[in-house]
Amino acid sequence: MRGLKVFSGRANIKLTEAICQYLKIPSVGKISLGNFPDGENFCKILDDVRGRDVFLVQPTCPPVNENLMELLIMIDSCKRASATRITAVLPYFGYARQDRKDDGRVPITAKLVANLITRAGADRVLTMDLHAAQIQGFFDVPVDHLYAAPVLNKHFHDLGVEADNLVIVSPDEGSTKRALGHVRRLGGSLAIVDKRRTSPTDTTQANIIGGPIEGRVAIIFDDMISTAGSICGAAQAVKDAGAIEVHVAASHGVLCGHAREKIDAAPIDSVVVTDSINIAREQRSEKLKFVTVAPLLAEAIRRIHHDQSISQMFGDNH
Amino acid sequence: MRGLKVFSGRANIKLTEAICQYLKIPSVGKISLGNFPDGENFCKILDDVRGRDVFLVQPTCPPVNENLMELLIMIDSCKRASATRITAVLPYFGYARQDRKDDGRVPITAKLVANLITRAGADRVLTMDLHAAQIQGFFDVPVDHLYAAPVLNKHFHDLGVEADNLVIVSPDEGSTKRALGHVRRLGGSLAIVDKRRTSPTDTTQANIIGGPIEGRVAIIFDDMISTAGSICGAAQAVKDAGAIEVHVAASHGVLCGHAREKIDAAPIDSVVVTDSINIAREQRSEKLKFVTVAPLLAEAIRRIHHDQSISQMFGDNH
Amino acid sequence: MRGLKVFSGRANIKLTEAICQYLKIPSVGKISLGNFPDGENFCKILDDVRGRDVFLVQPTCPPVNENLMELLIMIDSCKRASATRITAVLPYFGYARQDRKDDGRVPITAKLVANLITRAGADRVLTMDLHAAQIQGFFDVPVDHLYAAPVLNKHFHDLGVEADNLVIVSPDEGSTKRALGHVRRLGGSLAIVDKRRTSPTDTTQANIIGGPIEGRVAIIFDDMISTAGSICGAAQAVKDAGAIEVHVAASHGVLCGHAREKIDAAPIDSVVVTDSINIAREQRSEKLKFVTVAPLLAEAIRRIHHDQSISQMFGDNH
Amino acid sequence: MRGLKVFSGRANIKLTEAICQYLKIPSVGKISLGNFPDGENFCKILDDVRGRDVFLVQPTCPPVNENLMELLIMIDSCKRASATRITAVLPYFGYARQDRKDDGRVPITAKLVANLITRAGADRVLTMDLHAAQIQGFFDVPVDHLYAAPVLNKHFHDLGVEADNLVIVSPDEGSTKRALGHVRRLGGSLAIVDKRRTSPTDTTQANIIGGPIEGRVAIIFDDMISTAGSICGAAQAVKDAGAIEVHVAASHGVLCGHAREKIDAAPIDSVVVTDSINIAREQRSEKLKFVTVAPLLAEAIRRIHHDQSISQMFGDNH
Amino acid sequence: MRGLKVFSGRANIKLTEAICQYLKIPSVGKISLGNFPDGENFCKILDDVRGRDVFLVQPTCPPVNENLMELLIMIDSCKRASATRITAVLPYFGYARQDRKDDGRVPITAKLVANLITRAGADRVLTMDLHAAQIQGFFDVPVDHLYAAPVLNKHFHDLGVEADNLVIVSPDEGSTKRALGHVRRLGGSLAIVDKRRTSPTDTTQANIIGGPIEGRVAIIFDDMISTAGSICGAAQAVKDAGAIEVHVAASHGVLCGHAREKIDAAPIDSVVVTDSINIAREQRSEKLKFVTVAPLLAEAIRRIHHDQSISQMFGDNH
Amino acid sequence: MRGLKVFSGRANIKLTEAICQYLKIPSVGKISLGNFPDGENFCKILDDVRGRDVFLVQPTCPPVNENLMELLIMIDSCKRASATRITAVLPYFGYARQDRKDDGRVPITAKLVANLITRAGADRVLTMDLHAAQIQGFFDVPVDHLYAAPVLNKHFHDLGVEADNLVIVSPDEGSTKRALGHVRRLGGSLAIVDKRRTSPTDTTQANIIGGPIEGRVAIIFDDMISTAGSICGAAQAVKDAGAIEVHVAASHGVLCGHAREKIDAAPIDSVVVTDSINIAREQRSEKLKFVTVAPLLAEAIRRIHHDQSISQMFGDNH
Repeated sequence: MRGLKVFSGRANIKLTEAICQYLKIPSVGKISLGNFPDGENFCKILDDVRGRDVFLVQPTCPPVNENLMELLIMIDSCKRASATRITAVLPYFGYARQDRKDDGRVPITAKLVANLITRAGADRVLTMDLHAAQIQGFFDVPVDHLYAAPVLNKHFHDLGVEADNLVIVSPDEGSTKRALGHVRRLGGSLAIVDKRRTSPTDTTQANIIGGPIEGRVAIIFDDMISTAGSICGAAQAVKDAGAIEVHVAASHGVLCGHAREKIDAAPIDSVVVTDSINIAREQRSEKLKFVTVAPLLAEAIRRIHHDQSISQMFGDNH
Repeated sequence: MRGLKVFSGRANIKLTEAICQYLKIPSVGKISLGNFPDGENFCKILDDVRGRDVFLVQPTCPPVNENLMELLIMIDSCKRASATRITAVLPYFGYARQDRKDDGRVPITAKLVANLITRAGADRVLTMDLHAAQIQGFFDVPVDHLYAAPVLNKHFHDLGVEADNLVIVSPDEGSTKRALGHVRRLGGSLAIVDKRRTSPTDTTQANIIGGPIEGRVAIIFDDMISTAGSICGAAQAVKDAGAIEVHVAASHGVLCGHAREKIDAAPIDSVVVTDSINIAREQRSEKLKFVTVAPLLAEAIRRIHHDQSISQMFGDNH
Repeated sequence: MRGLKVFSGRANIKLTEAICQYLKIPSVGKISLGNFPDGENFCKILDDVRGRDVFLVQPTCPPVNENLMELLIMIDSCKRASATRITAVLPYFGYARQDRKDDGRVPITAKLVANLITRAGADRVLTMDLHAAQIQGFFDVPVDHLYAAPVLNKHFHDLGVEADNLVIVSPDEGSTKRALGHVRRLGGSLAIVDKRRTSPTDTTQANIIGGPIEGRVAIIFDDMISTAGSICGAAQAVKDAGAIEVHVAASHGVLCGHAREKIDAAPIDSVVVTDSINIAREQRSEKLKFVTVAPLLAEAIRRIHHDQSISQMFGDNH
Repeated sequence: MRGLKVFSGRANIKLTEAICQYLKIPSVGKISLGNFPDGENFCKILDDVRGRDVFLVQPTCPPVNENLMELLIMIDSCKRASATRITAVLPYFGYARQDRKDDGRVPITAKLVANLITRAGADRVLTMDLHAAQIQGFFDVPVDHLYAAPVLNKHFHDLGVEADNLVIVSPDEGSTKRALGHVRRLGGSLAIVDKRRTSPTDTTQANIIGGPIEGRVAIIFDDMISTAGSICGAAQAVKDAGAIEVHVAASHGVLCGHAREKIDAAPIDSVVVTDSINIAREQRSEKLKFVTVAPLLAEAIRRIHHDQSISQMFGDNH
Repeated sequence: MRGLKVFSGRANIKLTEAICQYLKIPSVGKISLGNFPDGENFCKILDDVRGRDVFLVQPTCPPVNENLMELLIMIDSCKRASATRITAVLPYFGYARQDRKDDGRVPITAKLVANLITRAGADRVLTMDLHAAQIQGFFDVPVDHLYAAPVLNKHFHDLGVEADNLVIVSPDEGSTKRALGHVRRLGGSLAIVDKRRTSPTDTTQANIIGGPIEGRVAIIFDDMISTAGSICGAAQAVKDAGAIEVHVAASHGVLCGHAREKIDAAPIDSVVVTDSINIAREQRSEKLKFVTVAPLLAEAIRRIHHDQSISQMFGDNH
Repeated sequence: MRGLKVFSGRANIKLTEAICQYLKIPSVGKISLGNFPDGENFCKILDDVRGRDVFLVQPTCPPVNENLMELLIMIDSCKRASATRITAVLPYFGYARQDRKDDGRVPITAKLVANLITRAGADRVLTMDLHAAQIQGFFDVPVDHLYAAPVLNKHFHDLGVEADNLVIVSPDEGSTKRALGHVRRLGGSLAIVDKRRTSPTDTTQANIIGGPIEGRVAIIFDDMISTAGSICGAAQAVKDAGAIEVHVAASHGVLCGHAREKIDAAPIDSVVVTDSINIAREQRSEKLKFVTVAPLLAEAIRRIHHDQSISQMFGDNH
């Protein structure tokens, strides 16, 4: 596979190594990354990249500013070193929730980040399960957008849960469409957790719209889990409504703050996330299970490098 | 109000006239617009715009390509005529539903349109109820985004419907969040029409999640009504579920194809839209009611011209 | 001819098919183009274009705004689908007469169109007989500019008109240089129709400068025929001056309004145009003759794809 | 007139001084311009320009590269010194004849120059009698385009030539339209010098189309006079055809090579040019007369600075 | 001072408060800045900025990536909130030492940072004592570059050191020019510490070129102090050479790693830095003295806002 | 070596020929360059460049504006002729000393030049011994920066000067670092000529810091020699200090003004420069010796064309 070079930022070296293994590339590209004593990043690419098709793998997970800046500096290095094409690979695209102005005098940081990546010199972007699909339009360079849903669905399919006994739960009104997509693949009924407060002092009440839940296995789907507060509240509501098992699934395990404690304390049987983010050891609850997206990313990189269709990877039903 | 000039494309001259009346401007700016025999647009601005703060009002409703191109040509004319600042005012932003790539080899036309408007020379954009709020991020120039919701809510509030007797209906899973916003203002319960097909041949089935509906006044909220197919299907489902009245409300009355026939035939008591689009005579069902957004747009233009806050127009609850 | 893909907008599918036949490509690239009920264009490219050298054939003839917007959307689709190179092929470049500001507060729409095409993502442009050659300079991307003159000259050469018996006529002062080019190839004398009004009420008077015309076969050359008013007035003047035959030739048959009626009524023996534009059935006068530029465009596409010189196609005498 | 600053490059300081006099500005802005011993330009603006509306007067006449580069460096200095607005004033726009690609592998230098001026930081351009009006479209920034024709026409009007006794001559086919414009203002008949060679060895033959010339006063109009070869050939042809007086008029007196000798030797009674270019002493034939465009340029600068219409300067008949 | 708004990022709020006091502005602009639990920055500007002249004060000192990203997000917020002009004020410009490629496949991070600041939307930059003056040229927007040298010189002048007894020391060959500038103002002789290793194992040897040092008061000038290793080595060499006092002066006190321990242990009598960076408590050696640049920055902001010359602040001798 | 084309501007054809010989290319690319009578440049590329990898060799030495403009026009021609990649090869980069704003209201001409080269269409730059390495950062396109130091060092190494008997001299404080680099390669001691004036009337005094000089062979290194004033003053100071031989070495022999006379009169034994600039016959002192950088440039071009590392050319010690 001549001409292809895959480098890893420091955010998720393990994932990059797995990708390279699937690509049957001898090893991840050699690069020296670090920080000077004053915290400024340094970067020196050790392999030759002149004329190469370069992929830079770096989820912009926490510490997001460090990881983003490292990515931008890697792009600048490759551009000035005359790489033919630079693809920024962001298995997780941070700042994606700041994708609109729903208040006065706030930024649209997701667009800012898109502009910074392009300005630094990326020729294209490969990412996965953006918080909002519209973020693709924040770029003028081509974006290939992958979906972890088939990998997550396969996990539950392999567990052998029967559709008749299943309820797919959206943790809030905004995620209803995503939940519905999983219903289409896994079967089961649809329920939505409606977190409206009925009075200013009332913080715990959560209604459930749809269902039924009683006596069923519930799977709550979200795109990412950060502090796990929302997902744990939803799990409690579902459990209270009579679910016999509660599973949580998300593409991105951001897991910050007291996420582990909350998950451990909540009536949750398992939490499934992909390896898009390398989760800190202290956040690794025993309930946490991983499915890998390395083959997915590797296949996409292989197809991009060989000018083969990405949409064929998903058939007619992503 | 020296220095301010408001011009109208041919898409909705009546709205621009109403805006100018609210602005207490003597009249809409003089401009000669038309088509040569071969269909090419011509444009000559008759009032002087050098050094002026120019607002060009043009919803990109059908015929969308004609209206968009006319807007772009007006912008080019003003830029070359040395206007100090050009604000493209799109009360309705066409092509907004093509805001993502959810399939291979399709355009993101909403982003293309944003790029074209900026490339033509617009310094800023004023628009209303974008199909997706993320479209703001398609622009790097400032976008002021207005909401017709208060105007629509006031319409129903004035009708005196009691919250206890009300159900707010989302016509599909994707609009749940919008419906919830109206629940917060008008009260009532929330219901979602779930249009999943249960078998490939089954096209009419529509479940309702949430409620209750039985014996209540239902208001279905959507951002726009095009062919009215979706909204009429939802109205039927809600009626079947026992609603005593069914009202439909939307910001933008695109109303194309057989919309009027469908609306006339459906169990709908009224359809309320704003005057963001000048609706063709043949689409004007007797059920159709209008609320005007001219004061809203005029106030926004006034504030932009005088460097006053737009977000203050909406308080803390847009 | 691996890697080459030719797609057609809806403006002139027949021409694109002819081009593909000359290129010995199995067929025109598969693409789904159409309009939603509200008139918004949709586009889905069905063949894979990733890494391909894509040519999009679309004259921006009437309906010009529809055809232009369709072209822009096709470009956006190809760019986001990772085509390696996108060439916009405009056999006829609409809006070309709006190429300067000869009045206050008017647009330079030809430049606007050039900017839109580039902004959408075209890497290069292939066009033919621009109304003004300077429009090439409206682009910063490479423009290949073809000339239909040899094809038109060949048509008259094949008819066997003798140079001694020929007069080449410019229909106005601005086209004198073009007419002179045909004199250099076909021989004959040069005449210019001078349409100055001698008084405000005098609209019909047309002087002829140069000649002689008396007893000769006259060919009036123009770059395009729109409403045919100008060309028919010139024909009348030439006939009045004693021409025994009057032929009209133009690169682009825009033919709009009452063109057919005027041509049918005028003392014109034949009108020759190329197939750069697909002429509507109701405009097809029996006097109308076609010469094809498909081989010319096909050869240019072949040479661009294979990195061969275009200027060699014209030798030293275009 | 606070906030306005006018600086002069070294190409035509006298013209700038005249402009400032008409503007009633105390003096031309203070600037230090020169060359280091190795020929590199230096520039230091001595007056404060921060927040000012700056006009930089520099025709790009010979030595064109020196004058152009000096202009670009002045623009860069003003931009970095925080001028609010920078208008490049080019009374003569050099390289304008290289405005198209009429051969393979040649530049469009006029577009290149437009791009360089914009890239350096000019916010707008003020120029006069561009060789081709389309060059306005080479810019995306506003261009104000002045016409010297009224000034030249006034010169001949003041001479009292009667229309009945006058013939306006176009020195070649490409300038016919310009000549016709003067006919419309000054009256007289139109003649075109047709310089076609009838055989490869025949270089002197020049036919005249139109007229009559015999016994009339002829005025040959061109946009610029460079080596004067073309204009002197036309004068000879017109004289040979019986003109009793031959005058030549042009907007720009580039006058290079053996222009003076040719003019002195030709049957020309007078050559009238504007002071857009400061003509070298050795090129100043006794036949040469000047009309000044300083009031025209000054009035345009005044209007631009005060946001007043430029097109009003020309009424309906430029 | 209407229209002026000064906001502070979180890097050096104290400095911004001092600036506002000098500007006689009631208070620093109200802004809500912080981090979400996952570390993503949030920003909401609380004061209205529409149409205002906004200055955002943020040195990009450690943690550099956090501070830079916060600045970019503040710029994006102000741009989208329609500020008329945004000046990024970087009293210390981080990443400035990565200003060239002196090795293969490394970034030019200082240029990347300049590009990011411009791309985010800054209209101009105000900074101080850039590591290399050429970094001004990394920007196309205007940069005002201040010098702390007069403030530092005044500190030593006030101490009353006599020129005859003084030696100004450059800590390495690259800073010779800077040291020479201080010699010109303070008098004394010049010495350069030459840190060449004489053998691979020899790490401590430091020659001194110039002088004399013996019996003199030495001041070592550098642009910034990071780990203090270099400056402490130079101090030791100077002390070994017989200096009776050793002072260190620098514009920017980055002070990271073991800087405090090294300074405390070295034969240094005092270290003078400006307050461009808010030094962490644990780095505040008792030898550390501060001179404030708040009046300098405030005066520059005042002049920029009122369109007054910045270069006049430095007279002929910065 | 298919696809590679090397063209030469008129600044240094001899160097380009030598480069092509080293590249074993049959000949320099055919191009027609010249000036019209009015001084405007013309350019026609005679070889086909469509799809080629084009290198344009043009040092921007005196006459700098002519040479720069010719380079820009060549780039425009190649871009419009569809060259795949255009590398501007500037063996000497003029205007490099204007690389910062060290005074109010002056340009940063080196940045302006970088912007012009990029705007014209260069995809990359190959240059040598920039006056300041930071100029690389003035470009966003890749810059390959070569060093003549090894070639100059080899010249002196071949002369057999012993390190013990050698002193490397920096002609001023700003070049100390460069001199130190040569000490590292050639050995010897370091001396700096300190040109401070001790009183306003004292112009000739030059101190020497470091050394020793007495009885040694001195080599003064600079990056370029223009009027030779500075270098001759340094040579005199070194001679006065007792040097037995004085040699001068520089990468670029700009040699203008009275350079030859000064060199001939100064106590200089030899002046060594590279052939980056074609030195005018009247400046060729007998003391002048040349070392060629043609192999260096040829090897860099070869490596760029074949996507091979440039940094490997310099090992670890450039």
